[in-house]
Amino acid sequence: MLHFDCDYMEGAHPEILRRLAETNLEQTPGYGCDTYTEHARELIRRACEAPGAEVYFLVGGTQTNATVIDGLLRRHEGVLAAESGHINVHEAGAIEAAGHKVLTLPEYDGKVRAADVGHYIEEFYRDETWPHMVAPGMLYISHPTEFGTLYSRSELEELHAVCRRHSIPLYLDGARLSYALAAEGNTLTLPDIARLCDVFYIGGTKTGALFGEAVVITRPELLPRFFTLVKQHGALLAKGRLLGIQFETLFTDGLYLRIARRAIAAAMKLKEAMLAKGYRTHVDSPTNQQFFVLPNREIDRLSRYATFELWGPRGEQESIVRFVTSWATEERHVDELIGRL
Amino acid sequence: MLHFDCDYMEGAHPEILRRLAETNLEQTPGYGCDTYTEHARELIRRACEAPGAEVYFLVGGTQTNATVIDGLLRRHEGVLAAESGHINVHEAGAIEAAGHKVLTLPEYDGKVRAADVGHYIEEFYRDETWPHMVAPGMLYISHPTEFGTLYSRSELEELHAVCRRHSIPLYLDGARLSYALAAEGNTLTLPDIARLCDVFYIGGTKTGALFGEAVVITRPELLPRFFTLVKQHGALLAKGRLLGIQFETLFTDGLYLRIARRAIAAAMKLKEAMLAKGYRTHVDSPTNQQFFVLPNREIDRLSRYATFELWGPRGEQESIVRFVTSWATEERHVDELIGRL
Amino acid sequence: MLHFDCDYMEGAHPEILRRLAETNLEQTPGYGCDTYTEHARELIRRACEAPGAEVYFLVGGTQTNATVIDGLLRRHEGVLAAESGHINVHEAGAIEAAGHKVLTLPEYDGKVRAADVGHYIEEFYRDETWPHMVAPGMLYISHPTEFGTLYSRSELEELHAVCRRHSIPLYLDGARLSYALAAEGNTLTLPDIARLCDVFYIGGTKTGALFGEAVVITRPELLPRFFTLVKQHGALLAKGRLLGIQFETLFTDGLYLRIARRAIAAAMKLKEAMLAKGYRTHVDSPTNQQFFVLPNREIDRLSRYATFELWGPRGEQESIVRFVTSWATEERHVDELIGRL
Amino acid sequence: MLHFDCDYMEGAHPEILRRLAETNLEQTPGYGCDTYTEHARELIRRACEAPGAEVYFLVGGTQTNATVIDGLLRRHEGVLAAESGHINVHEAGAIEAAGHKVLTLPEYDGKVRAADVGHYIEEFYRDETWPHMVAPGMLYISHPTEFGTLYSRSELEELHAVCRRHSIPLYLDGARLSYALAAEGNTLTLPDIARLCDVFYIGGTKTGALFGEAVVITRPELLPRFFTLVKQHGALLAKGRLLGIQFETLFTDGLYLRIARRAIAAAMKLKEAMLAKGYRTHVDSPTNQQFFVLPNREIDRLSRYATFELWGPRGEQESIVRFVTSWATEERHVDELIGRL
Repeated sequence: MLHFDCDYMEGAHPEILRRLAETNLEQTPGYGCDTYTEHARELIRRACEAPGAEVYFLVGGTQTNATVIDGLLRRHEGVLAAESGHINVHEAGAIEAAGHKVLTLPEYDGKVRAADVGHYIEEFYRDETWPHMVAPGMLYISHPTEFGTLYSRSELEELHAVCRRHSIPLYLDGARLSYALAAEGNTLTLPDIARLCDVFYIGGTKTGALFGEAVVITRPELLPRFFTLVKQHGALLAKGRLLGIQFETLFTDGLYLRIARRAIAAAMKLKEAMLAKGYRTHVDSPTNQQFFVLPNREIDRLSRYATFELWGPRGEQESIVRFVTSWATEERHVDELIGRL
Repeated sequence: MLHFDCDYMEGAHPEILRRLAETNLEQTPGYGCDTYTEHARELIRRACEAPGAEVYFLVGGTQTNATVIDGLLRRHEGVLAAESGHINVHEAGAIEAAGHKVLTLPEYDGKVRAADVGHYIEEFYRDETWPHMVAPGMLYISHPTEFGTLYSRSELEELHAVCRRHSIPLYLDGARLSYALAAEGNTLTLPDIARLCDVFYIGGTKTGALFGEAVVITRPELLPRFFTLVKQHGALLAKGRLLGIQFETLFTDGLYLRIARRAIAAAMKLKEAMLAKGYRTHVDSPTNQQFFVLPNREIDRLSRYATFELWGPRGEQESIVRFVTSWATEERHVDELIGRL
Repeated sequence: MLHFDCDYMEGAHPEILRRLAETNLEQTPGYGCDTYTEHARELIRRACEAPGAEVYFLVGGTQTNATVIDGLLRRHEGVLAAESGHINVHEAGAIEAAGHKVLTLPEYDGKVRAADVGHYIEEFYRDETWPHMVAPGMLYISHPTEFGTLYSRSELEELHAVCRRHSIPLYLDGARLSYALAAEGNTLTLPDIARLCDVFYIGGTKTGALFGEAVVITRPELLPRFFTLVKQHGALLAKGRLLGIQFETLFTDGLYLRIARRAIAAAMKLKEAMLAKGYRTHVDSPTNQQFFVLPNREIDRLSRYATFELWGPRGEQESIVRFVTSWATEERHVDELIGRL
Repeated sequence: MLHFDCDYMEGAHPEILRRLAETNLEQTPGYGCDTYTEHARELIRRACEAPGAEVYFLVGGTQTNATVIDGLLRRHEGVLAAESGHINVHEAGAIEAAGHKVLTLPEYDGKVRAADVGHYIEEFYRDETWPHMVAPGMLYISHPTEFGTLYSRSELEELHAVCRRHSIPLYLDGARLSYALAAEGNTLTLPDIARLCDVFYIGGTKTGALFGEAVVITRPELLPRFFTLVKQHGALLAKGRLLGIQFETLFTDGLYLRIARRAIAAAMKLKEAMLAKGYRTHVDSPTNQQFFVLPNREIDRLSRYATFELWGPRGEQESIVRFVTSWATEERHVDELIGRL
């Protein structure tokens, strides 16, 4: 059976495992106060060209989103996000559990538009009952989005500008950031993102790490005492160096991007084959998540050979499906899948 | 430099690393729905002689305590705990962040007494203003305690009885449970604990795992939809099998206890040497945490060779210090430390 | 200047003031443990034909919604409500502040449809990722809605049925319940509502009281220790008898309905006059809130004589406005307003 | 039966009722945007000699404490308070429900000492594990305390100084502030309090109002968007003018202090009589709450004629009881009680 369900089905890149084994019996202080973690921070600052940034390592995406958003918002504020944003759908209410409303914006293939953000905020304050409503206190975006799509540099610049104009922080969820950076046609570099976002995270779980997300805070004054908040959210790893070592490895010799490119190549090969077969994409994604509209018959047939995700409800004749490649996807598996189409 | 600061300074037991490497490129579903995790659950149920128990694997202790306690309490309730309980001191307010008060009880070397629990609850409901106060909704204990001490079987039976009598759940924080089970004079087996507690967790982080805590729920009706709560608390690991594989390894061939015994032996050797030198213990602990009262001069001198923790404020002449051994402590290091006394 | 902004611009019905004055220097225990409050509870139980119901008196609508919903939901659950529901818009995030997500349903003139409720819940559990999402844990409706519209008896029976089928409680926000009960064509009596809802409240603030909402709990097992929760939410009035006396007065000699009828008559007179002038309603409301589409010119002109609310953004040529009558609206004021059209 | 249970057993001062009746049918905007409320704000600013202060009116004490503290603290912070502080005991966990820990200090007849505050904060940051603990983020005091005792001006100056030194706000709960201001030997005026506290509230419920507490914010930058927070906490009264009118009345012609003095006189008369009978006070309170140690026999006998509160558990021979007078206490009732001793 071939597996294209998601990008966290394997363990870690072998180089990461090697480094974990190599350092295994060394003794280091806990909670990220070790030299591996410090080095990883430095590598990330350099990759982002953000020497003043603070970098924290957390374990998973939901806890990262919950902790950062909780830290950025005041009690009377909510977070603006696309209707389809991960925090609005698949995080079991973690944002609300910390007391904050998710204020939804229309989504266009998973993306929000600066004009909609501006419109929301302006209409909000134009409504004279606004003091009775949850104030838009920050903007959350995901890049790539939940549909695998990407913001262009000018789009992110516009989002940055509208947030600055209204004095709210811009936070980017980069759970799959590697696949954005490695995508063909991508116009946003890590330094761009660091320049345009107040906080963002670089996902490790889905790109070669056993687990781990690196939170980059380019305006540290927005998140004072973040360490304590991480602890309060249960997101502080005792053996913090495990995160440091993993990100140190990913940000050494360009490993992070290199392995992401493999996933992209596999995804593009699959997309071309699907299009060649006459199927159409549901969304045109340049990253490792691919969405196709397939006849139900074809879905049922393919399911005998491969696992993938039914995206949304099954249609009458055809349905949307998602195939995901990862840093670990082998070319022969893609070829085998294509052969089954 | 010798390190006796805590029991999470190293990575994982080599056997665990070996298993992680061996299974590294296998593809499994996420979130603990894989066969390794299922097998680990089964091994733990068997070790606990609790075939009906539910078992969940979380990453760390604070998140485990916060999630379990949040699930067990109703909104108007708080959690009874020793004044010195970890949840009351070193978890950055994670319990309160989820809306619940920690109701403190006197501690005796870190332990609470059944009589105090009963007294608290009875006095609470005797006070006619009780509807204006936070109701005691569960009991939290740690075993070993934060002072390394242990409940005896009869003590735990009494705590169980008083909780049953007042219809509140009993929850045991077993962050260092291995070191209790392996301690000389210990009278509480895993099946005892499973029989007497409604929920408890078996700590992995401090005993051979990279990370991980196994929550055992012997009365699953108390924690409905626990999976969603784990997700909401940001405590659900994407690559859940990493937890399954680690606990599978720990609960195969008695590894969990075996490596704990090493730590105990090292701790006992250190204690004997200290006593032989004429120093006294602050608390008489049979587990891997040892507390001594040392002259400040001796503390300063030892600090040149070893790291350990100053426990509480420094006294005028002498102070309390904590030395911790772990599954990874090597005998020669203990010998070297003893030689420096 | 004439005022039609809302239905809480005046003090209390004179009879209520008279009773407050009459009893002013009596001494009673606090927090609703007095005989006036007990009597008010009994009168409400009788009016609802619900002898087993529990009745609590709170001060205002937002705190009532927040407290009831917080009590009804488990931590992993959210509340289903119309997109336009008061809890989703104008309560400053009070539901989220207590940790719960508002799960929105389409609204039809402010109402939700049983079919949509059923569809939401069925689709939710059909999606295999549901354990990662906020579970629909109760249904919130307002009656009259925020648009002044009413559920019919059969509609409420359907909502009741779909909630029962999926084992979630049905909660009705009756901030303006009097105006529903007094409306022409209304098919839902208080006993109907008590039979079909698990919890609801009878609004006092907008119908003759200085303040106060009576929460009726027909299934008390759903809200154990509600008193403590009320206190925790800061919603417990020290001089609780003030609430008891007000509701006792409202539920004596049919005052509650009698004064609501006056408001309805005034609203109907205004509606007829508007329609006669050729203006159209935005929503066809049989209650004390009336929504009209007026030319901006007419709005500006009327604003010189009367205050009323611009409902939503101002259009290019015409806009939606809301006029509200109340138990205190005087007929001559409506006549004067009509004269100005 | 005579009643000395508490100071909220009656309605309002007749002058307040008169003003409410007089203005009853006037139409005003809601939520405190009316001219009565604006006038009341101005009167309070003047009484406090704090022209730049912001003033908000809330309904009750618990909601006021919960809202202010929630607004002042960041997520990682807790509130310092006396062990006996109202927020720590009798508010059903309202502070924790909003996510914050109450950090307790020793109490001396209900008061905290500046030295203890300083010590707590210094020891906190001296402990190298402080980032894992709840940071002391503000100081809560009550004046009079729960034991009726008062801070002297120099004591409050010291508390102010220690808070400033450590950059945390000082908040004073003045539920019974009138009885402090009116007490013999009191050294703290309203302007003193306004000068020394960052936020405090002037209690109305217990001094002549039906309900209501006036929050005075002398450093408004500490509580931005407080209106929305009040709404979110369910603490915003729709007919806000009811609060404005009551405080306007209380702060006109010195009514607030005048009626408090009556209560003090009654309390002093009772104290003298008790002492003359040979009974002793439990705490020497100069305000309207009096605590005596009485033989149980005397308690039982008195209970036939009067209601009062058993303070804490009943002793074997004698117990502590609380008698409370209020603005409404009549001299003849005190005389009658004294006659029964």
